[in-house]
Amino acid sequence: MSLLVTGSIGIDTVETPAGKAVDALGGSSVYFAYAASFFGPVRLVGVVGDDCPRDFLKPLHDNPRIDMSGLEVRRGSRTFRWHGRYRPDMNERDTVAVDLNVLGERGPTIPEKFRDSRYVFLANTHPALQMELLSQLTHSPLVVADTMDLWINGERAALMELLRRLDGLVLNDSEAKLLTGESNVVAAGLEIMRTVRRFAVVKKGEHGSLLFADGKVYALPSYPTFKVVDPTGAGDCFAGAMMGCLAARGHLDVFALRRAVAYGTVTASMELEDFSLNALLETTREGIEARMREFQDLVGF
Amino acid sequence: MSLLVTGSIGIDTVETPAGKAVDALGGSSVYFAYAASFFGPVRLVGVVGDDCPRDFLKPLHDNPRIDMSGLEVRRGSRTFRWHGRYRPDMNERDTVAVDLNVLGERGPTIPEKFRDSRYVFLANTHPALQMELLSQLTHSPLVVADTMDLWINGERAALMELLRRLDGLVLNDSEAKLLTGESNVVAAGLEIMRTVRRFAVVKKGEHGSLLFADGKVYALPSYPTFKVVDPTGAGDCFAGAMMGCLAARGHLDVFALRRAVAYGTVTASMELEDFSLNALLETTREGIEARMREFQDLVGF
Repeated sequence: MSLLVTGSIGIDTVETPAGKAVDALGGSSVYFAYAASFFGPVRLVGVVGDDCPRDFLKPLHDNPRIDMSGLEVRRGSRTFRWHGRYRPDMNERDTVAVDLNVLGERGPTIPEKFRDSRYVFLANTHPALQMELLSQLTHSPLVVADTMDLWINGERAALMELLRRLDGLVLNDSEAKLLTGESNVVAAGLEIMRTVRRFAVVKKGEHGSLLFADGKVYALPSYPTFKVVDPTGAGDCFAGAMMGCLAARGHLDVFALRRAVAYGTVTASMELEDFSLNALLETTREGIEARMREFQDLVGF
Repeated sequence: MSLLVTGSIGIDTVETPAGKAVDALGGSSVYFAYAASFFGPVRLVGVVGDDCPRDFLKPLHDNPRIDMSGLEVRRGSRTFRWHGRYRPDMNERDTVAVDLNVLGERGPTIPEKFRDSRYVFLANTHPALQMELLSQLTHSPLVVADTMDLWINGERAALMELLRRLDGLVLNDSEAKLLTGESNVVAAGLEIMRTVRRFAVVKKGEHGSLLFADGKVYALPSYPTFKVVDPTGAGDCFAGAMMGCLAARGHLDVFALRRAVAYGTVTASMELEDFSLNALLETTREGIEARMREFQDLVGF
């Protein structure tokens, strides 16, 4: 089934205890699309400025499963830039510098030929823009979005309006608590599940995730690893693999959702083993399947 | 197989967002023994002062699976008292008052008839006392202990000597990091596993646990619940059910360890639904088995 992602494309500088990457390929739609491409075709919608180096997006252009015809190179604009630094335990990071640039301008237009996309992921941005992108789509049985504390705090009304249009929401545990005012993450997730149409996924970083669907809650740990080089993009890869898996199978029952969350977990665990897309560029679907089998063995009892 | 626990017996006052319990039955050996008793017989070794109310330990005396002949009522001493207050999200607590009383005196003596115990759990106390208790035992193929930051920081040499005598160690994630100096909990657990003889279990509270055994790491989420009234004793119930399960089966392979950790998870999740032992007093082995089946359904994929 056709899968569309809208989100950022960024020039990232990232410092972690394991090293540093300067002017590396990043952005939510980039990580999402690459992770999703292991499972099936994916359509990317995003904007860069005309300062974006010619070969910067080569890993995406070279991937036959990623349709890049929704990429806009905007004349006179500059590409989004982010510089972050992780703390020693890698669970927290500080933003050293951020230049919104083209992300602070009007949003992208979804190409005509993408408007029939059936699976849609609206990566984190202003909820009014997410809503505007959604309005360009003609028929999408599964619309899932991400959000962040900035919009929960500052744009609650727009966000709540968006939530009621969504089939699923993916967000962090701290954001789920902030959104609902609940101090318990299970209570928070159950409330979000009742607001959106189908399901909520609460990501807990190294502590795994909770899936709320069909009135129940399903728990999964993360893939236990100490090989963490750069967590940037892990959440987007999680969402990309999850949505890619759902789109490839065409089922939306709880069993399919749980499998998709497990694929998201495993794909994200591979991504954080190197900077930028580097680890995923070295991976194949078979590599993901091998880790999936290992993961299944490690979490059962 | 015979299971012995040594640990505290306390008169607890606990305040949580859900309410308050005053002068309630608590202490590590109490929680451990009651949780273990669902799986088989357990021998308790602990000390109270002669101020301890006559019926205070009634739930233990009334339980035919708990052998209380290792209880010492010490003349002229006072019982351990603890007063704690949980913060709104229940993940952290502050000690309002603590009176070590009898716990600050010499340790208990293990009765002659308990000295052949084959499964032993040394609940958290000074590592020199844990070592001293261990020396009173004649033949124990499985010795597991708990510890805390106080001893990791202040009694490292004694603790390291103890660790080399242990088959397993159960501790919190922050303690595992503190003990090893590792910022990654998987790296920390692997190092502890190599120090003790068999296995380490790192507890992450609401985020579940990691079992390190046979050179590998096994992850389990917690049972997802929002019914948290009082987390006091949950870690001791986890250990009690885990050790009770191991002692009942008599196997120590990885499969047995993983089942035991799952039973620990489920039993702990029931305990925190009320103050003191109250929730466990209302539970049966069948109740634990029912939640175990539910847990298995919630964590698979």
